[in-house]
Amino acid sequence: MIKVGIVGGTGYTGVELLRILATHPQVQLTAITSRKEDGLPVADMYPSLRGRVDIAFSSPDKARLTECDVVFFATPHGVAMAQAPELLAAGVKLIDLAADFRLQDVSQFEKWYGMPHSCTRVLEEAVYGLPELNREAIKKARVIGNPGCYPTTMQLGFYPLLKAGVIDAGNLIADCKSGVSGAGRKAEIGLLFSETSDTFKAYGVSGHRHTPETVEQLQRMSSAKIGLLFTPHLVPMVRGMHSTLYGRLTKEISNEELQALFVDAYKGEPFVDVMPFGSHPETRSTRASNMLRLALHRPNDGNTVVVLVVQDNLVKGSSGQAVQCMNLMFGLEETAGLMHVPVMP
Amino acid sequence: MIKVGIVGGTGYTGVELLRILATHPQVQLTAITSRKEDGLPVADMYPSLRGRVDIAFSSPDKARLTECDVVFFATPHGVAMAQAPELLAAGVKLIDLAADFRLQDVSQFEKWYGMPHSCTRVLEEAVYGLPELNREAIKKARVIGNPGCYPTTMQLGFYPLLKAGVIDAGNLIADCKSGVSGAGRKAEIGLLFSETSDTFKAYGVSGHRHTPETVEQLQRMSSAKIGLLFTPHLVPMVRGMHSTLYGRLTKEISNEELQALFVDAYKGEPFVDVMPFGSHPETRSTRASNMLRLALHRPNDGNTVVVLVVQDNLVKGSSGQAVQCMNLMFGLEETAGLMHVPVMP
Amino acid sequence: MIKVGIVGGTGYTGVELLRILATHPQVQLTAITSRKEDGLPVADMYPSLRGRVDIAFSSPDKARLTECDVVFFATPHGVAMAQAPELLAAGVKLIDLAADFRLQDVSQFEKWYGMPHSCTRVLEEAVYGLPELNREAIKKARVIGNPGCYPTTMQLGFYPLLKAGVIDAGNLIADCKSGVSGAGRKAEIGLLFSETSDTFKAYGVSGHRHTPETVEQLQRMSSAKIGLLFTPHLVPMVRGMHSTLYGRLTKEISNEELQALFVDAYKGEPFVDVMPFGSHPETRSTRASNMLRLALHRPNDGNTVVVLVVQDNLVKGSSGQAVQCMNLMFGLEETAGLMHVPVMP
Amino acid sequence: MIKVGIVGGTGYTGVELLRILATHPQVQLTAITSRKEDGLPVADMYPSLRGRVDIAFSSPDKARLTECDVVFFATPHGVAMAQAPELLAAGVKLIDLAADFRLQDVSQFEKWYGMPHSCTRVLEEAVYGLPELNREAIKKARVIGNPGCYPTTMQLGFYPLLKAGVIDAGNLIADCKSGVSGAGRKAEIGLLFSETSDTFKAYGVSGHRHTPETVEQLQRMSSAKIGLLFTPHLVPMVRGMHSTLYGRLTKEISNEELQALFVDAYKGEPFVDVMPFGSHPETRSTRASNMLRLALHRPNDGNTVVVLVVQDNLVKGSSGQAVQCMNLMFGLEETAGLMHVPVMP
Repeated sequence: MIKVGIVGGTGYTGVELLRILATHPQVQLTAITSRKEDGLPVADMYPSLRGRVDIAFSSPDKARLTECDVVFFATPHGVAMAQAPELLAAGVKLIDLAADFRLQDVSQFEKWYGMPHSCTRVLEEAVYGLPELNREAIKKARVIGNPGCYPTTMQLGFYPLLKAGVIDAGNLIADCKSGVSGAGRKAEIGLLFSETSDTFKAYGVSGHRHTPETVEQLQRMSSAKIGLLFTPHLVPMVRGMHSTLYGRLTKEISNEELQALFVDAYKGEPFVDVMPFGSHPETRSTRASNMLRLALHRPNDGNTVVVLVVQDNLVKGSSGQAVQCMNLMFGLEETAGLMHVPVMP
Repeated sequence: MIKVGIVGGTGYTGVELLRILATHPQVQLTAITSRKEDGLPVADMYPSLRGRVDIAFSSPDKARLTECDVVFFATPHGVAMAQAPELLAAGVKLIDLAADFRLQDVSQFEKWYGMPHSCTRVLEEAVYGLPELNREAIKKARVIGNPGCYPTTMQLGFYPLLKAGVIDAGNLIADCKSGVSGAGRKAEIGLLFSETSDTFKAYGVSGHRHTPETVEQLQRMSSAKIGLLFTPHLVPMVRGMHSTLYGRLTKEISNEELQALFVDAYKGEPFVDVMPFGSHPETRSTRASNMLRLALHRPNDGNTVVVLVVQDNLVKGSSGQAVQCMNLMFGLEETAGLMHVPVMP
Repeated sequence: MIKVGIVGGTGYTGVELLRILATHPQVQLTAITSRKEDGLPVADMYPSLRGRVDIAFSSPDKARLTECDVVFFATPHGVAMAQAPELLAAGVKLIDLAADFRLQDVSQFEKWYGMPHSCTRVLEEAVYGLPELNREAIKKARVIGNPGCYPTTMQLGFYPLLKAGVIDAGNLIADCKSGVSGAGRKAEIGLLFSETSDTFKAYGVSGHRHTPETVEQLQRMSSAKIGLLFTPHLVPMVRGMHSTLYGRLTKEISNEELQALFVDAYKGEPFVDVMPFGSHPETRSTRASNMLRLALHRPNDGNTVVVLVVQDNLVKGSSGQAVQCMNLMFGLEETAGLMHVPVMP
Repeated sequence: MIKVGIVGGTGYTGVELLRILATHPQVQLTAITSRKEDGLPVADMYPSLRGRVDIAFSSPDKARLTECDVVFFATPHGVAMAQAPELLAAGVKLIDLAADFRLQDVSQFEKWYGMPHSCTRVLEEAVYGLPELNREAIKKARVIGNPGCYPTTMQLGFYPLLKAGVIDAGNLIADCKSGVSGAGRKAEIGLLFSETSDTFKAYGVSGHRHTPETVEQLQRMSSAKIGLLFTPHLVPMVRGMHSTLYGRLTKEISNEELQALFVDAYKGEPFVDVMPFGSHPETRSTRASNMLRLALHRPNDGNTVVVLVVQDNLVKGSSGQAVQCMNLMFGLEETAGLMHVPVMP
């Protein structure tokens, strides 16, 4: 059994980790930290876990994380990098669900996250945790920067097209929509039910921190310089993410050939579902599961390919992907603990 | 492996059966019928099942249900009773999620469901499938009438009080609220998003068919004559049911003693969670799981006890309970395939 | 034109006052205070008011409220009573949307609101602002305690029955459901979209501050001692309130006679709609309007009458009712500025 | 008073017309037809109209529409063109909320709507009812083709940019999102609450009938050939539409100049609100009102301008716009009956 610790388990990615790990056959949940909730049984904060998770929060000093095999950080940006050296020195592997180890370009990190990077030596060895594109490196990694939710959809959606060099890499558009849980469990007016229900809006249109992360990764797929316009929107739903990706075709290519690029790229992938050409995936078809589904369109048979990508932002977009990485890092079945059937309706 | 057939798998209880059975370790999904969708892969209708359920719908005549060990009827009222004799004769067990085998009082059935009961001989041996109150009979049953969703909450909520004889059995009030999926997957104006979102209403207040079913069962718990006023309401949410039960106390009893009645009644029950006195259970704490949670209140320390009961109407309120019955009928672990952790948020 | 001031216009009842007053033909919006938002145009906080409300927030010291004819307090409990004496001395009338002037029983106020009442002299002359039951007193009032949202539905729903003496006044049950906006515009985890959407729960079941307010008013309608059990619930919708009221009949009375009690009681009332016996009013049928609708049921022709009452909690349940009081206090048409047609769907 | 008739008032655009016209100071609601609901008071179908609209549905033969001054068609496509000649001959003006008189290119109409156009002579004189771009023609029109909801946002959003010739007209992208009421009041599985709540999807991505309508109108603004990629999505909300428009800049232009293009274009327009550069309009800021709001962005100071446009799809996107046209056609104040303040929250 792998001994697992969680730092900062009071947010949505934290409780989602708990939901997944509670039924993972090879995991022993060992410690979960919260300075504020020290001593509180996890199930008292999240009644959904009553009878299923027996552990209590403990303050960081008591938590003995160094005895774990792996520690997940479901914390605000900046926490993981502060604790990484000590844990690594103790032989503990580390998966950060925040941004500390996502961006190799430190200046971009510091610009978008508004803090100095205190741990660039660890950053250098950190591996970007997107298994479909980075599986072998993840297997050997000690430190994982778990991808952002939006970036996961953009990368898996654009990858086969960029790799084949059939679209204009300098003019990518990603019009993305997320459920409200993506904003986290924070006491902010803007996230109240009465502020977000029965309405729709864009946010961060002039610039969003998921752009540099995505561009850095997309650039690895293409020799041409990546230009990405990313527009996030807030949808009145709890979970779910839908990205509508637009790529201008630069080569003659049939719809069948486009589809084949995706089918080939994701053959055998347990968590990427390439739907038939012309499908309209719904976010709920992935709800509470680690599946990402996508489908291609070519409107009016024109020169633009549209990729529709859906996932559950808290699973494949965050905690599920982190567990997928953990499975790889410890030589487990990649799908262990992750075979939930999506909840529909 | 138990060979399972499903009749009428195109509605919400049908797809929920599929979701549960797809990961049940001792079940082989053998046949699913739909006259209209003959030949259509189940996953084409429900993309959430892509890659997880490979079976296709087949018309009833092709489905070879008599080769199954058990057949679930996720059909409109009246279908199961028409097919029951042939299946039973072939040694197939039968679990009906509709009302055909719920009411032993045939005249009540005929009054509320507007059709004659064509199969009273089978009805006689049918067992009411509420495991917490009827476990031994279910183990030996060939035919199960799976309880209605509302009745499950009312029975489990009133049972310890009636059994102990501490409330006025003749004046029970159940103010119940259900998510929209409880109304089924039917093309009706009244169930449209634009008709049911951001609004709330009662329905069927003057009389509802779940009343006679519940009264018949509650009467088994009490020597006094049961009087039940049941008021259903429609909540703008997909899944979830919340029943607020009111009982007038007829005896001196402390809050601790009240709580003890429930703790004792449900000790060891894997799917009934008695929360601390004064708790407010939320429906989402049971979402997509087979758990039912309840909590007691005694407002202003008066002479009325209030029981708050929540469940997922499609799981403990329907398909999960049916699988729980199946497990009992075949000597499996009662919790097999039913240990989903509730999805929250 | 009546000069109107608003204290504390940043919450939902405040912005709703603005929406209503913006088109009121006899009102001049003169001042709106917010210490925190001093100088901010109201329309910058609420873009829905762009082009329709030109006023800016000003700090209380600059607001010159004493020059107004009437001041609304859309503030937390305790603010109005602190400012009442000065305003009254300046000849300004005052309508408090919070609880400072609702409860004549000061000990009850202090028990439930956890603060001493600093202004009992003003409280003595304060009038409870429910026009249908208190119209003449409101006309002459200088100070109005605007009713709570739940109490409005309970009083208008029980009134004809209590007045006629046909139900057991000592055993009233009110099972009430409110949209989330009723909890106000506060940065609290429990009010987040991800915490309240797609779920349902009761709250405050053991005791809620709207009980003593309602009991005090109901007691005025009945010589028998009032006993009220009030259970509030939270519905995943923005606006709307639905109260399901249960009264035990103590006299022989036909359904027609019951209906007539209500028709007679509310004849000519512009904002109370007695629907046909057996109707199921929906909250949305009152959305964004000052209408309250109700309908009677007698389930299974038994000895309990059920009254279903719906309103928009922010209009008839709060700001609209306050404007209705203002109209009466200044001799205007009672319906002035309040004839919005409900928004449906 | 203008005598108004409505054909087909049972859908959402019909009831929205009723809501608006019920308080229009210069309108007398004369007739509303429904073959199926002949004799039913409108308020029995829509309780929100109880006490506010007294008229009953009548069958088309009884409705005496020829005595009206203007008739609105809130009907499926194809109905208005069948009745237009007779009404026009009787001197009745006509506003069609469906597509019969939107597209001057008959072949496009026939391709996308799957029916022959039976009335091309009337089509020739029909005026496209977008007042901001077509005001003078509307004033003189006898027949109005009321714009589609999506096309309204796309035209008003792209117009100042195309007119100024600063974007690449051949590569416009419109990523649009609509509330569910836009799909109408139809008994279809895909529109059920349980199918559309808590989920998000695109639809009609390969081709949608609002594309040719929009292209035909945009072409009038630009000498360059229009190329438009339009992607509609379904949002789990009742009302509201958000269009995210992307235009590639082809000229050096500052953000201030871009903003000025819009400010100038819509100066004095009562129903178009140009928000400050960089704003994020929410659909709810227009709810139940005739306002359309838009804001400009230039992400990462790059070469793409993004226009965010919001409206209420049932008001400015349909029935409100139709009344705005009526006001112009009859020489009334353009804003008469349309000054509702948006309902927020």
